[in-house]
Amino acid sequence: MDAVDVVTELWSRIAARDWHGFGRLLADDVVLELPVTGERIRGRADVVAVNAEYPEGWSIEVLRVVGAGDQVVSEVEVPLAGVAVFRAASFWTVRDGLVVHGREYWTSLRADEPPAWRERYAERL
Amino acid sequence: MDAVDVVTELWSRIAARDWHGFGRLLADDVVLELPVTGERIRGRADVVAVNAEYPEGWSIEVLRVVGAGDQVVSEVEVPLAGVAVFRAASFWTVRDGLVVHGREYWTSLRADEPPAWRERYAERL
Repeated sequence: MDAVDVVTELWSRIAARDWHGFGRLLADDVVLELPVTGERIRGRADVVAVNAEYPEGWSIEVLRVVGAGDQVVSEVEVPLAGVAVFRAASFWTVRDGLVVHGREYWTSLRADEPPAWRERYAERL
Repeated sequence: MDAVDVVTELWSRIAARDWHGFGRLLADDVVLELPVTGERIRGRADVVAVNAEYPEGWSIEVLRVVGAGDQVVSEVEVPLAGVAVFRAASFWTVRDGLVVHGREYWTSLRADEPPAWRERYAERL
């Protein structure tokens, strides 16, 4: 699998709650950074755990995967029933078919109010 | 310029407050989406305006640009003095040397508290 295929397969296995299969796409010493919450998770077991233990009710729709060399970026939509529609912009580094580093920006749709000065320029999504 | 060069140059012109030069990298009918605030801005003039009129005090550091074909993703850090350190994950579509579509996820570092259940797995950034 090339790097784009690895990331596409990663989301497919997460969506299927195939946690063993998800772990097989991660390097032993994978590092996952979540800048919005200021967290860093180290190692395959803990990266699998934070995904597997996320409270249920979610699904995954992959919107886009863009890759060049060992760098891949994915854009996914993750509705969490009754809570929010999340979007993740995730920057992955893939080496020898394994994810070695991830940095994920988790957001949700319409989480913040637009600034008043921008109203004259913007439609509402 | 290829698509990656266009996006790299786009950030360089924004950083320089070269609003005329920035506009010359945008298609007439460019569309910019800001999902976190639920906004859509249409057309070169308005996309230039929302960048040019953003309250001052910011700088730009391009952390990463990943491109394949007409799709380019950039990760930039935007400190705004006294307010926050923003990060933008921006998905661009480039055709014939011009940006025709952008979707930007604007976040800030440590904006949200991590969930309590994840504390056992995460270091703080």
